[in-house]
Amino acid sequence: MGVEEPLRTGVRAARPSCFLDDHDWLTLKADGGGPGDLPHNEARAHVSPAELSIIFFGQLCLIVAAARGVGWLCRRFLGQPQVVGEMVAGVVLGPSLFGLLLPDLQAAVFPAETKSILFVGAQLGVGLYMFLVGLGFDRSHFRGNARSAGAVSISGMAVPFLMAVLLTPWLMGRDGLFSPGLSSFQASLFLGACIAITAFPMLARIIHERGLSGSPLGSLSLSAGAIDDAAAWIVLAIVLATFGGDASVAIKAIAGAFGFAALVLGPGRRLLRPLGVRAERSGLDQGLLAIVLMAFLFSAFVMDWAGMHAVFGGFLLGVAMPRGTLAKELKAKLEPITVVLLLPMFFTYSGLNSKLDLIASPALLGVTLVLLAASILAKFGACWAAARLTGQDNPTALGIGALMNARGLMELIILNIGLQKGIIGVELFSIMVLMAVVTTLMASPLFEAVYGRKARERGELGAVQR
Amino acid sequence: MGVEEPLRTGVRAARPSCFLDDHDWLTLKADGGGPGDLPHNEARAHVSPAELSIIFFGQLCLIVAAARGVGWLCRRFLGQPQVVGEMVAGVVLGPSLFGLLLPDLQAAVFPAETKSILFVGAQLGVGLYMFLVGLGFDRSHFRGNARSAGAVSISGMAVPFLMAVLLTPWLMGRDGLFSPGLSSFQASLFLGACIAITAFPMLARIIHERGLSGSPLGSLSLSAGAIDDAAAWIVLAIVLATFGGDASVAIKAIAGAFGFAALVLGPGRRLLRPLGVRAERSGLDQGLLAIVLMAFLFSAFVMDWAGMHAVFGGFLLGVAMPRGTLAKELKAKLEPITVVLLLPMFFTYSGLNSKLDLIASPALLGVTLVLLAASILAKFGACWAAARLTGQDNPTALGIGALMNARGLMELIILNIGLQKGIIGVELFSIMVLMAVVTTLMASPLFEAVYGRKARERGELGAVQR
Repeated sequence: MGVEEPLRTGVRAARPSCFLDDHDWLTLKADGGGPGDLPHNEARAHVSPAELSIIFFGQLCLIVAAARGVGWLCRRFLGQPQVVGEMVAGVVLGPSLFGLLLPDLQAAVFPAETKSILFVGAQLGVGLYMFLVGLGFDRSHFRGNARSAGAVSISGMAVPFLMAVLLTPWLMGRDGLFSPGLSSFQASLFLGACIAITAFPMLARIIHERGLSGSPLGSLSLSAGAIDDAAAWIVLAIVLATFGGDASVAIKAIAGAFGFAALVLGPGRRLLRPLGVRAERSGLDQGLLAIVLMAFLFSAFVMDWAGMHAVFGGFLLGVAMPRGTLAKELKAKLEPITVVLLLPMFFTYSGLNSKLDLIASPALLGVTLVLLAASILAKFGACWAAARLTGQDNPTALGIGALMNARGLMELIILNIGLQKGIIGVELFSIMVLMAVVTTLMASPLFEAVYGRKARERGELGAVQR
Repeated sequence: MGVEEPLRTGVRAARPSCFLDDHDWLTLKADGGGPGDLPHNEARAHVSPAELSIIFFGQLCLIVAAARGVGWLCRRFLGQPQVVGEMVAGVVLGPSLFGLLLPDLQAAVFPAETKSILFVGAQLGVGLYMFLVGLGFDRSHFRGNARSAGAVSISGMAVPFLMAVLLTPWLMGRDGLFSPGLSSFQASLFLGACIAITAFPMLARIIHERGLSGSPLGSLSLSAGAIDDAAAWIVLAIVLATFGGDASVAIKAIAGAFGFAALVLGPGRRLLRPLGVRAERSGLDQGLLAIVLMAFLFSAFVMDWAGMHAVFGGFLLGVAMPRGTLAKELKAKLEPITVVLLLPMFFTYSGLNSKLDLIASPALLGVTLVLLAASILAKFGACWAAARLTGQDNPTALGIGALMNARGLMELIILNIGLQKGIIGVELFSIMVLMAVVTTLMASPLFEAVYGRKARERGELGAVQR
């Protein structure tokens, strides 16, 4: 093309078709997104490659700055962990604050055409994050005080699902919360998983950082949190596998996802073992890193393709990886860029979909308060009661409840999957984002109040870090 | 939106507008790219978020696999450095091979809608890469045998630009090579920069790896390569600043880019110094990494916004960063992911734009052979002659010529900037990509033949690595 182009006018507008320009494939076009938006909308926006690049670098700079800035404020003035600030930063950058105060500027910084890039960065970020969570997953978490751990984990699962079953008919009677295509069984399962999930990585970090791993509180929370999270993810997998209409989708999801999971955790684990041996010998060189990343991308691809989500692939591969030097160096090489650059993209993407102003309507405010109270009661309350009933003292039981109640990033991941797959609408999504932020914000001060202060006086607790 | 949605039909197709679906902003739409493609094309393709995620993970897995696979083949059977294989892998994945043999499969793996994501990944990759190059930049490279170094660097610059001046009228007489909006002065400068550029990072690595830093060949090549590359980038900056029509664009580019460069290298360097002190004290923690990444993204954003390119921002910031622990740990944390994951995205993006089949036409084959011969003559020939005339022995002079002649990744970066900004068309782009691959492929065997074998016999050369 362009070779035989006979015209040569000498002005830029007439350059031959072999030049990349505004009409080329790189140009992104986006609809406004409203229901009245026809496919052939006249007011279609155009972003040229040059603009895309400029917006991308500016946007990412703002995202990292907001994550660190709000994170620092939360650490400094509220004694909160960094991740809480980053969750809040994502919501702040979205329509709930930045978009409400400065709608034009917000639209200029986050034009619709660039959201697919944020989306992909977010997918890669949570996929790698769950890979790192899997990598740090330790079977010893399941050990510990068996009777109490069993009771805490079972009630931390059963009560949330029971609560979900009770609330679902009421929620399904309202428009725009659950997808009309969802059965009430599926809706209950999804809502139950949302209430039951725990910010396991955050919980594990708090416990390790404060030297509580060996205490009843530490071992109980770690084992119960791990069991509950595993259960919530399996339930989510069942919802995803059965949602979407016909049987072939469900068969593909179940056969693909569960078959692949069995392959990764069985023969996959053995296949990966030589990588661990190689790392012990010569460290994590670029060739080895490339192999691990290929395995990660393939795993994420298969789970995504089967109709589940990339995070399952990442987590499974992380669990199956050999431990030792390889796991340690993978964490050292991948964690910084994942946490500093990619996860803030996820928080922002999630925040751009959160419309907290919707919740301000009288009708939804009621739903929000009910769901918030129900979530706290079903998780904090149930875990506290189970620990008390199996003989733990009150501060320990309250401490366990406070930690198990934090939903953190894990909740945001489940909610984004639900929104992306069309299981829930923007309103329920926004309500549950608020629930995730509130329960995560509660965790540190609550834990300090009910357990930390006294334990520190007894000398059983390390200093608060980060 | 959707709150007051009165209809509730119970089928998925009619779910309220608050659900993300195929009509939402996440959906990417792409034109076919041909000149007859109207903005309101009926056959617009749609990629839903779920599909985008699946394609992204599959595509990236294939890209990393191809880069490592072809890289391994080139190392194992041709004795070439990894980067040569990765350049070839990018071309292989594009329309020149994969697309020629299996057009349908290639189009399914690289649908037009996903290319903006590859583009952004590539921009981030080369930006970070040039940041790392700047970080490794060492003023001692400019030292060494002054008379020879001066002669080699001046002829390695003057002869390529002279050659470009001679060839430009002939090339501009053909359609589709240079933009019609380009003056012959600008075209000569751009072509001259393309011929003059050296794969400096590759050259530096070969010289350091083989323990040649102290030899005449090492110090000469390093200083001449650094000077020539700096000159080529400045010339490119001038072309970019003056290309685009009116004076305001040029003023913005010159004031913005050169002003920012002065700021970064002057007060910026002092502002960054405390980061180095902090790193010496407590290493590169996540907070410090975030600050450096913000500075990098901001630098890339400013240079991009001024009408230059993100790579200038990355390189400048790298040069201005404090040395010591900070530089060492930044390299350790950022290099693996940049080299293993992001640069292959750049090579693939570049390869998708390369259409080597175009070159097969009789008319372009002639242009290709002339440009290839001219590039080799002007760089290899000129550097060799200058070294000989200033008293170097013949093997040393030939070795210098062989190393300076490799264009590598640097050439691909310049070419992609030229294509993106509309300075050159796909045909000249493809021809010069071939030139970059051929001159880079030549370097290692030529260096071995003219210098390496004898030097190794004399015990002056370390073993070949990588």
